[in-house]
Amino acid sequence: MISKSTIKLLRSLSVKKYRLKEKLFLIEGTRLFSEALKSNYPIKHIWVLEETIENSSIQKLLTEFRTSKTPIDIVSQIEIKQISETIQSQGIVGIAQIPEISTHKDWNQNLLILDRISDPGNLGTLLRTAEWFGIKTVILSENCADLFNPKVVRSAMGAHFYQRIFQTNLFDLCDDLLKSNYSIIGGLMDGESLESLDISDNNWALILGSEAHGIDENLVSKCTHKVTIPKFGNLESLNVTSAGGILLHELKNR
Amino acid sequence: MISKSTIKLLRSLSVKKYRLKEKLFLIEGTRLFSEALKSNYPIKHIWVLEETIENSSIQKLLTEFRTSKTPIDIVSQIEIKQISETIQSQGIVGIAQIPEISTHKDWNQNLLILDRISDPGNLGTLLRTAEWFGIKTVILSENCADLFNPKVVRSAMGAHFYQRIFQTNLFDLCDDLLKSNYSIIGGLMDGESLESLDISDNNWALILGSEAHGIDENLVSKCTHKVTIPKFGNLESLNVTSAGGILLHELKNR
Repeated sequence: MISKSTIKLLRSLSVKKYRLKEKLFLIEGTRLFSEALKSNYPIKHIWVLEETIENSSIQKLLTEFRTSKTPIDIVSQIEIKQISETIQSQGIVGIAQIPEISTHKDWNQNLLILDRISDPGNLGTLLRTAEWFGIKTVILSENCADLFNPKVVRSAMGAHFYQRIFQTNLFDLCDDLLKSNYSIIGGLMDGESLESLDISDNNWALILGSEAHGIDENLVSKCTHKVTIPKFGNLESLNVTSAGGILLHELKNR
Repeated sequence: MISKSTIKLLRSLSVKKYRLKEKLFLIEGTRLFSEALKSNYPIKHIWVLEETIENSSIQKLLTEFRTSKTPIDIVSQIEIKQISETIQSQGIVGIAQIPEISTHKDWNQNLLILDRISDPGNLGTLLRTAEWFGIKTVILSENCADLFNPKVVRSAMGAHFYQRIFQTNLFDLCDDLLKSNYSIIGGLMDGESLESLDISDNNWALILGSEAHGIDENLVSKCTHKVTIPKFGNLESLNVTSAGGILLHELKNR
């Protein structure tokens, strides 16, 4: 059973304003819950569809969450439809606290900086890719998709639980990074070929820009390296998630 | 003006059955039309929103399409909403013929093989990435998203106009490729590290598998090389489009 006020709360969390007010975000699907367990990210409450309790992967999750004393409620088909954001729900929905992220300057060696990534699927995929490559700090400009939008959370596949992600003024950030001798690498359409990129320093930040407009010109001027992925075909650009994957892979494997 | 029967036809093209029947697919947005011009892909008919005719990029497109005698009709806001698939239409919609693709075995040197890629955005992005890397033949298994689904077309950004893309039995295809001494490279979670991949032959095919299940086991057994992208973080997998970008970049730049 789930109360009307809880349904109202959960539904409100698909809207940014209410996420900020409640400091909560929605989690759905078995993979996200298993990453939350792996990373010890606290889940405040879980609702599970009655019909799926026998499912072995759900059962395993519930056993672990019961051990950590997470409140779990069993709900009906009708109820899960009212609280699930996805069309084909896996039958498990939860809420977690939006973390208080410190924006201190104690950066990691490698950073990902995202300038105006507006598509939630792209933002989530970039966080997922960054986590694959061990990037633990991701810094967003204003006008990125909202970090706790359910689509971002779904496509990030749990990256939120492992990373420090925050929004700040990217111009000031780049000035600070330059003072600390970071290489700032911008992914651009007309930079030097990635093959000839030569970074001597282990401290670097990669900037990726908006799907439609690329990196803001004033940010480009802060870049110590402007790189382009060699092209062999006809189209004018790569999707930002593909470009981000290629650049992070190259930077991490040099 | 646009007739009721034309509206009905255009709306029907969001459904695969009617696309196959009419042998037509929908095109939207200025970038797709400019790629169609660049590649000389014939557009059968264009509808443009009255309010956007003064827009310089639309004007430039229309001038070129008029030269090639493509029929162009001007439509109202209400009409464009009835025929557009997107929420924020750029005010230009068209139809093009679904090509008759020969499935002959006169392959290119490099092929991309996609096994059960079910998300339309992923399929389109993979085609776009493949075209960036000059891959001119892409071969799909059954159960991939439909190639001419409007979301696939949009995210492919014009790749359809440059590539030979067809569906076939991948097991038979791999047998044929092996007979022709192609290297078959499978992107997997538990293969050898991409860094140590050594392909002596210039003829290769890359296989990428389903978002949820990876490459079919029976296809994996056909691979001459099984590769994994080195991981530095915690998550269990990369998005298939990021993985595809990284693998194609590596294969093309060796």
